[in-house]
Amino acid sequence: MIFVDACFGRETPYTPVWMMRQAGRYLPEYREVRRKIGNFLDMTKNPEAVAEVTLQPVEILDVDAAILFSDILNLPMEMGLPLRFEPGVGPIFDRQISTDKDIDSLDPEGYKKLEYVYKGVELIRKRLHPSKALIGFAGSPWTIATYMVEGKGSKHYSRIKKMVYSDPMTLHRLLGVLTENTLNYLSNQIDAGADVVMLFDSWGGALEQEKFLEFSWNYMKEIARKLKERYPNTPVIGFSKGVGLYLEKMDGKFDVIGIDWNTPMERAVEVFQDRYTLQGNLDPTRLYSKTATKEGVDKIAQTMKGHRHIFNLGHGILPDVPVENAKFFIDYVKEVTRRGR
Amino acid sequence: MIFVDACFGRETPYTPVWMMRQAGRYLPEYREVRRKIGNFLDMTKNPEAVAEVTLQPVEILDVDAAILFSDILNLPMEMGLPLRFEPGVGPIFDRQISTDKDIDSLDPEGYKKLEYVYKGVELIRKRLHPSKALIGFAGSPWTIATYMVEGKGSKHYSRIKKMVYSDPMTLHRLLGVLTENTLNYLSNQIDAGADVVMLFDSWGGALEQEKFLEFSWNYMKEIARKLKERYPNTPVIGFSKGVGLYLEKMDGKFDVIGIDWNTPMERAVEVFQDRYTLQGNLDPTRLYSKTATKEGVDKIAQTMKGHRHIFNLGHGILPDVPVENAKFFIDYVKEVTRRGR
Repeated sequence: MIFVDACFGRETPYTPVWMMRQAGRYLPEYREVRRKIGNFLDMTKNPEAVAEVTLQPVEILDVDAAILFSDILNLPMEMGLPLRFEPGVGPIFDRQISTDKDIDSLDPEGYKKLEYVYKGVELIRKRLHPSKALIGFAGSPWTIATYMVEGKGSKHYSRIKKMVYSDPMTLHRLLGVLTENTLNYLSNQIDAGADVVMLFDSWGGALEQEKFLEFSWNYMKEIARKLKERYPNTPVIGFSKGVGLYLEKMDGKFDVIGIDWNTPMERAVEVFQDRYTLQGNLDPTRLYSKTATKEGVDKIAQTMKGHRHIFNLGHGILPDVPVENAKFFIDYVKEVTRRGR
Repeated sequence: MIFVDACFGRETPYTPVWMMRQAGRYLPEYREVRRKIGNFLDMTKNPEAVAEVTLQPVEILDVDAAILFSDILNLPMEMGLPLRFEPGVGPIFDRQISTDKDIDSLDPEGYKKLEYVYKGVELIRKRLHPSKALIGFAGSPWTIATYMVEGKGSKHYSRIKKMVYSDPMTLHRLLGVLTENTLNYLSNQIDAGADVVMLFDSWGGALEQEKFLEFSWNYMKEIARKLKERYPNTPVIGFSKGVGLYLEKMDGKFDVIGIDWNTPMERAVEVFQDRYTLQGNLDPTRLYSKTATKEGVDKIAQTMKGHRHIFNLGHGILPDVPVENAKFFIDYVKEVTRRGR
């Protein structure tokens, strides 16, 4: 698989490419499945629907990797927090975590209840072309904890940051429980057929540098370390958003580090050299215009020439991007990075 | 004024300190005025109320500077866009800007309609102790334009970034009109008695580096340059949020550069040396705990020792911070930075 080769820094005929949220609302075929099933959460629980929408972008856009269709909040939901999605707000936990007693109420083996995910992974791997990789994923413990403590998306992260500064021991305990579950959740995804796994830390940037290292990155590192012990041949991708200023302090047994679009790729290469494959980082809004897409891809390709690289957006694809432009992005990346050009 | 001295890099007996949003909801005295007036927007239009709440944190906390109580959106409102504030959403422009015709409909001299602001500045300067500075302010053209194009706060800034990538000329025209208005708006604040002026670019970080320089920082620089021609003795503060990765590319005739809390102060000093006074940057959530406040202040004070510095938070103070903790922050900064200690 060209994608797995790129994760390990082996030579590939071109730079492989996929898009975060590529199984998503910008695709009419995705919207059709969602219409049939009724809502997002039910889709994530239906292995057939999961397989279908996961495979759509591979068939339609010819990306080099499929990423499991799911949500990072399925795990805490199955650990015991009822989850709902409210239009215009997003995910909501009506019950929140703030005390040791709240943590006691969680199922310490919640990962075992995600059979529908493992089943989906099996179906996808069976149907996916052998040359394409399947990426499994989970949220980082910090990001999951943030949702569990705040109850929903947050602007200032006041509740969890109160814990960071006033009750760090309770928070560390919660992060420990989540780390154990996430490790096993990803292991099960690999056992079911995932070729690569990725940790999404959407809210790493909510913390200043030393607190980010203590409350987020260290737990991600622990998961990566234990995964590599269990599965040395499965690449692990770490992606924290909003931490471009902290790169110097980020290490660990990852094969790939995701770079968000705010971080100039020059800087990421300067910091990491070729210790990791770097994944990213086109600004997703560039996909509104083919000219802007081309300009952005050219710049990144130039910077990453001769370096370990997987092309991607620097954040998820937006729902109102024309499919034609997404297709142009994928095709153009392959064209411009083809070796011997 | 110790504050103005620090802006120009002159020696001061201690590092002066104030807080963004210090005239705000965490103060019971502020909430009382707001209750009497009824709503936020009416408060900004009432010079007596403006003066009263602007002076409150000086009296209560003994900060070294007062900052005019107002909103960055009063200017575009007076240029012709009706503004309202919706609880839980924030500011909303029901009519948005997207075409040349929309720009034609704006009052190119809207800044003249902000007499209530100039009147407020006069009242404050009259009542404020002569040792304390009064900071006037405006939003950056890019940040104001973002509100005018998006209509309200935004997660992905899709509409204005579509303009960045598909219709940059129209956007540059809008930014030009805003730049001219902002320059005159700040000039009038200085004429009315402001000792210092500050440009707030809350959404600079919505752009990748080169686009940030083109669509935001360049306009801020132009305003600073022209202000310094007119008022060489009035310090100008530039503050863009979310651009810690772009510092190397930021220059201009500012006296002070604000640093957000995501940006390690070490890095800011390394990049700017003592070309500017640096303002910032305690994480506002540290104010939830005195221990965390102390730890954070100690670290910043250590880093900035011997450098040009104004102490501040790295973002606005949050409404649920205890006044006692805010007071502790101000007192502790003065204590720990006092020379000869």
